[in-house]
Amino acid sequence: MKKISRRTFNTTLTLGLGMMVNAPKACAVQKRADKKLGIALVGLGSYSTYQLAPALQETTHCRLAGIVTGTPEKEQKWAEKYNLPKESIYNYDNFDTIAKNDDIDIVYVVLPNSMHADFCIRAAKAGKHVICEKPMAVSVAECDAIIAACKKAGVKLSVGYRLHSEPYTKELMRIVKEKTYGEVRYVAADAAYNSRGNPNQWRLDKALSGGGALMNMGVYSIQSAIYGTGMNPTSVTAQEFSTRPEYFKDTDETITAQFEFPNGAVGNIFTSHNANINRHFSTFDKGWVELNPANNYGPLSGRTSDGKVLEFPHQSQQGLQMDDFSKHIMQGTPNVAPGEMGKRDMIIVEAIYQSIKEDGKKIPLDLGMMGIV
Amino acid sequence: MKKISRRTFNTTLTLGLGMMVNAPKACAVQKRADKKLGIALVGLGSYSTYQLAPALQETTHCRLAGIVTGTPEKEQKWAEKYNLPKESIYNYDNFDTIAKNDDIDIVYVVLPNSMHADFCIRAAKAGKHVICEKPMAVSVAECDAIIAACKKAGVKLSVGYRLHSEPYTKELMRIVKEKTYGEVRYVAADAAYNSRGNPNQWRLDKALSGGGALMNMGVYSIQSAIYGTGMNPTSVTAQEFSTRPEYFKDTDETITAQFEFPNGAVGNIFTSHNANINRHFSTFDKGWVELNPANNYGPLSGRTSDGKVLEFPHQSQQGLQMDDFSKHIMQGTPNVAPGEMGKRDMIIVEAIYQSIKEDGKKIPLDLGMMGIV
Repeated sequence: MKKISRRTFNTTLTLGLGMMVNAPKACAVQKRADKKLGIALVGLGSYSTYQLAPALQETTHCRLAGIVTGTPEKEQKWAEKYNLPKESIYNYDNFDTIAKNDDIDIVYVVLPNSMHADFCIRAAKAGKHVICEKPMAVSVAECDAIIAACKKAGVKLSVGYRLHSEPYTKELMRIVKEKTYGEVRYVAADAAYNSRGNPNQWRLDKALSGGGALMNMGVYSIQSAIYGTGMNPTSVTAQEFSTRPEYFKDTDETITAQFEFPNGAVGNIFTSHNANINRHFSTFDKGWVELNPANNYGPLSGRTSDGKVLEFPHQSQQGLQMDDFSKHIMQGTPNVAPGEMGKRDMIIVEAIYQSIKEDGKKIPLDLGMMGIV
Repeated sequence: MKKISRRTFNTTLTLGLGMMVNAPKACAVQKRADKKLGIALVGLGSYSTYQLAPALQETTHCRLAGIVTGTPEKEQKWAEKYNLPKESIYNYDNFDTIAKNDDIDIVYVVLPNSMHADFCIRAAKAGKHVICEKPMAVSVAECDAIIAACKKAGVKLSVGYRLHSEPYTKELMRIVKEKTYGEVRYVAADAAYNSRGNPNQWRLDKALSGGGALMNMGVYSIQSAIYGTGMNPTSVTAQEFSTRPEYFKDTDETITAQFEFPNGAVGNIFTSHNANINRHFSTFDKGWVELNPANNYGPLSGRTSDGKVLEFPHQSQQGLQMDDFSKHIMQGTPNVAPGEMGKRDMIIVEAIYQSIKEDGKKIPLDLGMMGIV
């Protein structure tokens, strides 16, 4: 992905605002319920290329309708591959004119984390519904700005938490909610991979990523600790570990964190760019549920203490996610991963970094039921 | 188990010393290698009753030869059940006369933790080899005293770490040692059970147990974090959680701890008397190994990232453990769980409590290769 400086983006944003005078608002809601909503992908990195675009060939309620890219050579390639009309192909300079494009209902922002806020806000101002890839932003303040912009524009907002639409994860949520195995007492949420590639990738550049393992994989751990207990944590303590500072120049390599939940359950979080692990474990008074893998692109795998092996047919998680959001827009079904959930997780991320900064001090969290689904 | 005050024990110890003048030293080592060593169990609680005594009916290199109990009604019952001669039945007052009993080669101390040191030292002074149930004692100073007493008496000393003789655990150790899946990066070690019974049991009485979940189940987590990486940790941070202070009056309910290992691997420890979990997970550059259950009485169960299901025939873990120690005595095979290992773990226990006391401060550990097998 081509790097674009913050200065360039801010300039673009200012220009964009000037173009927005006659932008239509929430055009999608007027569409017929049987119509597929048009999605424009912003940022054509590997996630858009290998996950989102292919998924959008199989979705029921939405389709790939446009792209926004800073790399000119991708324009033609994608146009041909996905039969995209020329007028639905944008770059970062003319992005805001997307407001005039009735074929685009949803803008999916798949840029590096530090660019999420700018583009989500611009998408909202263009009157488009917004999917913001996880993590929602690089600060709680940015999350607030995105939420406010979407509210003001009257558009729907979702975070790219695809697992809320994923059947193994939904089965875990069901077990937690229905207390199939009784009261939850402990959750272990490990999400990590061993990064040995290009040390200059954007995920390892704090200016673009906002942080390292925690911002990337740790958000999965936070998510699964919460849906694996059905509660928001009331406090967090955290620790950081570093073994390759020459590679992880300014982002966190490994973080552990401990959550307290309202019923006394404890959450144990491990996230790292220095180990391969992808696992969820919830234990209850009368049994346990395990997912391993728990948060890769699937198929996931799971089992329970009474010998059950979870088995669901595999479908693209991203496809299910985008269909869920489209149904939310068209049919009023629940928004399974609203912006408030992304903000809640960013509050926790900031608390974890704060605890680390204060040598593992316990940071109280006042999240209430915010973002619980 | 009948409670015996520290004062009573000290008095008994003093009396005992007076009887020891002509105690034979390390009588077992002179025995023929094909003879079964005689073991006396000290303390006839549930572990002796349901695990050790039955195991000793099937062991190859040792046998149940005597008992030491503070409960007179157990004397006759055990004598009949196990055909024990009257002269091999002791109480806590006459225990030290065991020195004269050539039929007893090993004394296995299965008393509450705070009594381990007294009885291990008395057993050593009586010239008997010693197995000390885990945790070895309630302080590092007591571990030192036990080790010194055994050294002085020329007897062998082992801690009741039965898993070092257990096939699933040994397979994990082999995988770690041979780097079957490459370099280890992370280990999760969860050992906990949900205590809802008598709040006055000795395990929940700090004067007898020395501590709560950490002293009881946490020692398994410490052990498995170490044999699951093949290294001793270089630092530890820890946190304590409490939800039922009325039940856990003066012992820890739940503790999490984080280990750093020399190669940068991280260990994540969870131990509790408020959750059911019994699990080990080691992840390496090229795969992972999981045991679940990992440290109950078995049979254990395990699997690896490449789809292997570990399968070993079930044998009594305690039987294997006591046979291993007997072979060590008679044949000079390695002592797989020496006193130094128990002391190392107590150093870590004390560091964990210290970290908690200092609000999660990182406590450096200088263990070198101590106790690694």
